[in-house]
Amino acid sequence: MMERIAILGTGLLGTSVGLALRAAGFRGTIAGWNRSLEAAETALSMGAIDSIVTDPLRAARESQVVLLAVPIYATLDYMEQLAGVLDCEHLVTDVGSTKAQITAAADRLFNTPERAAFLPGHPMAGKERGGANLGEANLFRGAVWLFTDDPSWQRSPHGIALVKAWRDTVAAMGSRVIDLDAFRHDELVGWVSHLPQFVSTALSALLEDEVGEAPELKDVGGRALREMTRLGASPFTMWRDIAYTNTEAVEAALLALEQRLAHLRENLRTPELREEFEKANRFRSQ
Amino acid sequence: MMERIAILGTGLLGTSVGLALRAAGFRGTIAGWNRSLEAAETALSMGAIDSIVTDPLRAARESQVVLLAVPIYATLDYMEQLAGVLDCEHLVTDVGSTKAQITAAADRLFNTPERAAFLPGHPMAGKERGGANLGEANLFRGAVWLFTDDPSWQRSPHGIALVKAWRDTVAAMGSRVIDLDAFRHDELVGWVSHLPQFVSTALSALLEDEVGEAPELKDVGGRALREMTRLGASPFTMWRDIAYTNTEAVEAALLALEQRLAHLRENLRTPELREEFEKANRFRSQ
Repeated sequence: MMERIAILGTGLLGTSVGLALRAAGFRGTIAGWNRSLEAAETALSMGAIDSIVTDPLRAARESQVVLLAVPIYATLDYMEQLAGVLDCEHLVTDVGSTKAQITAAADRLFNTPERAAFLPGHPMAGKERGGANLGEANLFRGAVWLFTDDPSWQRSPHGIALVKAWRDTVAAMGSRVIDLDAFRHDELVGWVSHLPQFVSTALSALLEDEVGEAPELKDVGGRALREMTRLGASPFTMWRDIAYTNTEAVEAALLALEQRLAHLRENLRTPELREEFEKANRFRSQ
Repeated sequence: MMERIAILGTGLLGTSVGLALRAAGFRGTIAGWNRSLEAAETALSMGAIDSIVTDPLRAARESQVVLLAVPIYATLDYMEQLAGVLDCEHLVTDVGSTKAQITAAADRLFNTPERAAFLPGHPMAGKERGGANLGEANLFRGAVWLFTDDPSWQRSPHGIALVKAWRDTVAAMGSRVIDLDAFRHDELVGWVSHLPQFVSTALSALLEDEVGEAPELKDVGGRALREMTRLGASPFTMWRDIAYTNTEAVEAALLALEQRLAHLRENLRTPELREEFEKANRFRSQ
């Protein structure tokens, strides 16, 4: 029943999904669209898509499954547009990093017996740099793929079957599916994904001010410094939407870390330091 | 002239130096001592040392080069003891992570024409877990090996030759030698080494409190979270000495990061966020 899939956005994630679909044995057609034609051509040349389309709404109508692989606000825009042109024969799903706003839009615009189904998704995989050329068939292997489906949604039989087919496809790509409430999702990724990113950005920006003019001294930090600042290369364009759509959770996580660092700073010579190291050791031992 | 080397402390670094010496073609004898016999036996079985000695001071007297590969306060203790039993035919060197106190002790206890030479050293290589069994011949390959030698020191001709021989040996192990003033060293590693460690410890301890009871949720964070908390596994026993001997630099670095995180938190929805991301991007682009 999944004969044609439209991937709207052939950046790192969209291209990787196309490649992973093929690696998982998907035999249907994959149509690709991207705002810049160049990235779509790269995805085509890599075999991630079979054809480049110029009209994303038409490509969506002609497909059973539509994957939105664009930044969060672009995803919300496309949801508005797609709701008007799709029906209960279609499934739309996405890969956005925050889910409360997207899941609320899905509730408002999709997921009735007459309308298209929308399955809010979030693969916990990526790289610090984007781009179709970095796409990989194995990007999702061993990763968690979160869904924030709402059990109260009343989908068409077609929609229910397409949702199941997409969940099976994600598992076939090697991901482990976990279902979460959308608000719990945003809170959780605030801690385990967004906080690490903003810490790495702040640390990298600080070190750029402190040692940026003596680049040879960066080598002194070795592997530890490289790892702790790798995410510093992440693009603002992607993280702006995350900062805007998960502001409260990120603020709370940042404030908690500021307090934790202050506590550590005030206890560099007290037994409290041991407790912090032991607690950190426990986090890593599980 | 380097016929016999004594490695005092056969943990991760001491064992790795022994293995790296062999890999670099050193043909002399390597005697090893460790507080716990078990680690010395592991180093012996791995071929990092030729024999286990039970009297470290005697082993030092019988060697031309003595490598102190123990925590910082233990290094300072051994420096006191060794100064009394060695003479201008010997070189002592170390691998301690802070250098101001060790370099001051070297100035007080060594480095006259009559006394043994002391070359304060710091290889920027390690792992988040210690232990002889994790030792590797390639640990120092591609890493920076810092020395905080004082140009005013007046060594014996023997001492001068041994210092040169050890520096050449370090280069033969694949490390890039950089010389720094001891105070500048401690300030610099406060930024590029100690700050990343304490941030990772604080982040890991915070996340242990927030999501530690739901360990399956850690998987959600994926590679980014694993990297940002890897150093959370580092042992307190090693970092206590660093916190005690580089307190001011670490305090200053932690405070600066707290302020940076607060700035970022207050600007999640302003154009300042772009500036922080762009600065972080610059740090990673060099």
